[in-house]
Order: sequence, then structure tokens, then C-alpha cells
Amino acid sequence: MIYLDHCATTPLRPEVWEAMVPYLRDRFGNPSSAHAWGRAAREAVEAAREKVAALIGAAPDEIVFTSGGTEADNLAIRGTVAARGSRGGHVVTTAIEHHAVLNTLRGLEKTGLAVTYLPVDARGSVSAASVVAALRDDTVLVSVMHGNNEIGTVQPVAEIGAVLRGRGILFHTDAVQTAGKVVVDVGALNVDLLSLSAHKINGPKGVGALYIRRGVEISPLITGGHQEGGVRGGTENVAAIVGFGRACDLARQELAQRSGELRALRDHLLRRVREEYAGVSVNGDPVGGLPHVLSLSFGGLKAQEIVSALDQEGIAVSAGSACTSGRTEISHVLAALGIPSRDAMGTIRLSVGWGNTGEEMDKAARVLAGVIKKLEVLRDLEAAAGGRGCF
Amino acid sequence: MIYLDHCATTPLRPEVWEAMVPYLRDRFGNPSSAHAWGRAAREAVEAAREKVAALIGAAPDEIVFTSGGTEADNLAIRGTVAARGSRGGHVVTTAIEHHAVLNTLRGLEKTGLAVTYLPVDARGSVSAASVVAALRDDTVLVSVMHGNNEIGTVQPVAEIGAVLRGRGILFHTDAVQTAGKVVVDVGALNVDLLSLSAHKINGPKGVGALYIRRGVEISPLITGGHQEGGVRGGTENVAAIVGFGRACDLARQELAQRSGELRALRDHLLRRVREEYAGVSVNGDPVGGLPHVLSLSFGGLKAQEIVSALDQEGIAVSAGSACTSGRTEISHVLAALGIPSRDAMGTIRLSVGWGNTGEEMDKAARVLAGVIKKLEVLRDLEAAAGGRGCF
Repeated sequence: MIYLDHCATTPLRPEVWEAMVPYLRDRFGNPSSAHAWGRAAREAVEAAREKVAALIGAAPDEIVFTSGGTEADNLAIRGTVAARGSRGGHVVTTAIEHHAVLNTLRGLEKTGLAVTYLPVDARGSVSAASVVAALRDDTVLVSVMHGNNEIGTVQPVAEIGAVLRGRGILFHTDAVQTAGKVVVDVGALNVDLLSLSAHKINGPKGVGALYIRRGVEISPLITGGHQEGGVRGGTENVAAIVGFGRACDLARQELAQRSGELRALRDHLLRRVREEYAGVSVNGDPVGGLPHVLSLSFGGLKAQEIVSALDQEGIAVSAGSACTSGRTEISHVLAALGIPSRDAMGTIRLSVGWGNTGEEMDKAARVLAGVIKKLEVLRDLEAAAGGRGCF
Repeated sequence: MIYLDHCATTPLRPEVWEAMVPYLRDRFGNPSSAHAWGRAAREAVEAAREKVAALIGAAPDEIVFTSGGTEADNLAIRGTVAARGSRGGHVVTTAIEHHAVLNTLRGLEKTGLAVTYLPVDARGSVSAASVVAALRDDTVLVSVMHGNNEIGTVQPVAEIGAVLRGRGILFHTDAVQTAGKVVVDVGALNVDLLSLSAHKINGPKGVGALYIRRGVEISPLITGGHQEGGVRGGTENVAAIVGFGRACDLARQELAQRSGELRALRDHLLRRVREEYAGVSVNGDPVGGLPHVLSLSFGGLKAQEIVSALDQEGIAVSAGSACTSGRTEISHVLAALGIPSRDAMGTIRLSVGWGNTGEEMDKAARVLAGVIKKLEVLRDLEAAAGGRGCF
């Protein structure tokens, strides 16, 4: 079994597991309780907050724990739009954001928000200049992801942040895929809001965080008790928060080494795939982009069939398109890159991570090439027989 | 150490822990992934959904997993108000709801929602008649909690639901404190929306659910991927959901027995407290109310000092009032009951649960009586010396 879907989710590291266990078993208190059980939980949450803050160069009081990256994105967008009070207003984003950003903005458009979805170039990049050109007098927020989850392209967030400074416009970035892979520093990136998720960095599911720069006003999404400085109600997910803190600690300590190792594994995989099968094309920006992501197109094949065939061989990857009701839907990211639909339909994502080995890369490349060649034969047979749906 | 704060949070049962471990360690897949890792996670989530549904007599497709009870309450209220589209509208609730309901409605009042906060009687009850009397032509939602978290009073939810039927008004109840303690059946209760939390029933923190009756339209609070039928985006908190399912399973299987055991423990505790200290008064409805909650007032004392003194003896309880900036704030629930402030300020909540024993009740009563007597002496000395703040 070879897991090459670390952009979707990652295994819990043993160190993270060990940190969590006491808070799942004995130290079960509610951090809001005044007694010993409560104080132990409160101390653990605050210690974790320091570790999360340290990963991104923030202060602990700038970290709000959420149930994950999606909630963090929602809080960043809905919270700043709501805090500005008036209906209306304008937000600038890109066409290749995560659905947590795109679908949230699409929903807010129905209530009167104006949104500009910036196009990207063939590698998936936006420029700071295109962001500036899209600004309006009523622009309240710019949301541009740090690194893309499908193709790995890293946006010029620091540069965009620099040109936005002093304009009274808030700047949010989704760093869910970049944290622990490349340097993520809120000061260097010039951002006001930054989303994180634990389960993408070998932490547990069910917890994430939003960095909110001191002084930035934000309306809560979930109200109730006065947890998280009044910005996020609900009993804290203590054990998960502790695990998140430990995962951030590890990510910070091992960042340089891990980044290099992932890049070496990913490049090894790509080299071997190319050796086995010359007809592959690579999407995004493998040189300047995230070290762990590889988006490959096999023109004329169906991504879901590749994913399924690899699954039968014990190899986990994901598809860049999905067959729904007999019709193939190409991902919005691949569509925005302008990839010809024949290639986009045959696009898969392989993402490496903690636990992968060079031997696994060799085997995955070999199996992948075998699968591709077999599917090509089948495709030709089907074409001869008159074809079928979902292509 | 004696934990008597099961209304705040509960320890994880070993059976729940055992169910969760595989999904924290090896079966770490993302339920949205098409490969074997993803399918294993998806199956676990759906199996848990069946167990949660079974506890409350719902169908699995009527269960939406959330990050906890607070998010469930927010989704129920914000989601139905938003789904009705128009700003404005009217909601009926009670003065003693959980802050997740009250603070959410207070926030929505600022955006034009009208809210009626029904008073309660001396036991903390509202009547179906008072709900009906409060209805307006533009009433869109009634939200009345099933059982109160501070005093244990159980509201006539089934009766309220019956009188609301056919009026085109949605009915929500927060059953966070009642699930696993008394019968909670969405059919019998005549509710459209019902909130649950795992960590109050010996499940993990970070997960809850909203029951949404089939056909009820609700706008999502957190948008992103198409998880949870499009009503709640974000990668599912798989291990916690599995634990929640197991906790619901246990709660359902053991309900009658557990309810009786908790009541016996609680009544034992009350009897022993009265034997040790005659001057105690009991709030709420210990006979008709929840079996595990005991709200006790010690007139003329300060709740926080009682909690703190018990904590030093290794006994965990919670206060019904909090001293903030030298001023005592009485809980909104105790205030709504019309309890004289001298009593309200000296009110503590003891809540029993899984793991408690009769011996613990004996000891807790003995220690509590000792603490009360000591604090009375201190109070009299302080009064003689001219008093001090926060009383």
C-alpha cells in the first residue's frame, strides 16, 4: 500500500498521537471550568496556541482555533465582510482558490457582495499587479491562497501583501497546503488573516486555526460562550488542539529538512514516471511551487479510471476531474489553467508526505506506467466499439 | 478526586476510546477520497451517522455532523433564518437557553430579527400556552431547550411541538444535556431541529450533530466542499464522529438503566448534603427534571469561593455566578428563576455521571458541608471587619 494523497489528508505522526492521548483519556476537563480538571485543559490549549503561533511567526493571541481549514476560511471571509457592517462591498480573489473560499464568496454574492475572480496564467499564478488593477473603492478584502492544493503553485503573497499595505483593505491567505512545507511567516507575507489546518500537517482532523492580526476586527461565525476571545464559541477540542500544537512544533523544527526531502521524493517520482512513460505532461509549477505536489495529465484517458486502477494496486492518488451523471466535470483549477480538456480529463494529483520512501516512488511510477498503458489499450478498443459515456 | 461536573464535560468511555483509536492511527483517510483509505473513512462516518440517528429516532440522512453543540445551535438558528431569505422575521425562545442560542439570537437582533425571550416560572419551566401566545404572523422559528444545563429543568417540548404543528413555524430544541439521560425521540418531541454534543455523553470533544427533519430547508453556516449533503463543508472529523457514534450506541443501549442510576446517585448526594447541612436550598426541578443535575444555593456565600474550596479538596463542581472585575454576575438562568440574589450568588451546580459512586456522594456531601461551615465563619469575620469586594 502506497499513500500518495497527502494533499487530501495525512497520517497522524506518533509524536502527535502521544501528545494527544492524555487529553483523550485522563485530562478530559472543559477549559472553561474553574477546577483542576478545567485548569489542566486550559493550560494545554494555551501551550498549543503558542506552538501554532510560533510556526507562522504570530503572537499567541492572534490565533483562533477553529474546527478546521474550511471554518477558518469561512471565518476570515464572512467575519470580515460582516464586521464591515454594510451589505455590499467588494472582494478580490482568484479563480483557483479552494472551495472553502470560492463557495463562501459565491454564497455572499447572493446577499449583495461583489467579487472579482482573477484569472491565472498557465502555471496557475496571479500577479500583484493584477490584484491592484482589480481593486475598487469599496474593496474590503483580498483573498489569495498561498499554495494551490491541486497543482502546487505558490502565489506571490508577500508581494501582494506589500502592495495592499496602507490601503485599508484586509488581506487573507489560505496557507493550509503550505504550512510545514515552505516558510509561512505572517510578517514576511504581509497578511492580516491566514488559515491553517492540522490534518494536512500530520495532526488530527477536526481542528484548524485562523491567524487574525492584532487590531483586525472580525465578527464571529459561531457564537455561544466566550471561548477564543469571543470570536469562536464552543467547548475547545482540547486533545485535537494539543495534537495540532505538537504537529506545528514538529513542522517548525523540521521544516528545512522536510521541505528538501519532500522535493527530492516528488522529483524522484516524476523522473521515474517520465522514464516509464514519456507521454506525460506536468501541470502547475514543479520548480517554484510546493515541494510535495505533482499534477500529471495523461491525454485521452479518464482520471477516475486511473485513480481506480491504482487503487486496486494499493496506491492512493486523487483525480483532477470527476465523472458525475455520465458527464466529466473538470476541476475549476485545471479549467482556469487553460489545459485542453483532453488533458484535463486525464489529470491526477500525486502528493508525497511523511512516511513515503524512494522505493515507493519507484514502485508507484512502475505501476502507474503499467496502468496507463493498459487503459490506453482499453480506450482504443472502446473507441473501435463506438465509445461510451463519461468521456 | 471526585468529578461532579458532568454537565460541563464528561470523560471518554473506554469503549468510545477503543472505537476511535483505529481512525486516529491507521485508518486516517479523507472520506472524500475515492481510494481504499477514503472508502474506509466514509464507511465509518456513515456507520456512526446511523448510530447517532438511532439514539434520537431519526433517519441517518437527517443527521448533519458539526464541530459540537454550539455549532449545531448556530446552524439551526442562523441556517433557518438565512434560508427564509428576508431580513426581519421573528423567533420565540426562552430566557434560560444556553448561550449558544441566546448570544446567536442577540447577534441576529442587530441585523433586524425580532426575538421574544419567554420568562420561566420558579422551577424554570415555560408552558406551551406561553409559546403560542408569543407567536406572530412573521414568526419563523421557535427554539426551546429540552433540558437546562444549570438547573436540570426539562421543558414540555413535545407539547410545544404539538401546538406548533401545521403552523409553518420551525421548532428547534437543544438536547445537549438530555441525550443519554432521558428519552430523546424526534418524533415524540415533534421537533424539526435538534442539537446534540458528543462530549456531554462520554464521547469526544469537537463533534456534535444537528438533526434536520427531512424537507426542512437550511442554509449552511460553513461552506466549502459538498460534505454533509452540502449543509456543512470541511473534512469530516472521522475519529471523533466514530467515537460519537459509539457513545450514542452505549447511551441508547443503557438509557433506562443509566437514567435510574444517575438519579439514584444524585438523590443520594442531595440527601447526604441535607443531612450534613440543613440550610441548603434546591433550585429547578429535581423530581421532574434531569436525573443528573443538582443546583444548590447556600445563601450569603460566594459560589466561586465554594467551588475553589472544593477544588482544593479534589472535588470538581461549577459556580452559578462569576466574579468579574470585583462585581458578581449572576447567571442568566438563576436570574430568570427569580431567585433572591443572596441565594443566587451562593449557587453551585453538581452534576453526576459515568464513573461516579455512592461513596463519592458520601464524601462530597461531607466535604461540601465542611467547606460551607468554614466559609460561613470566614464570612462572619469579614462582615465584622467591614466586608470586601465581589459580594
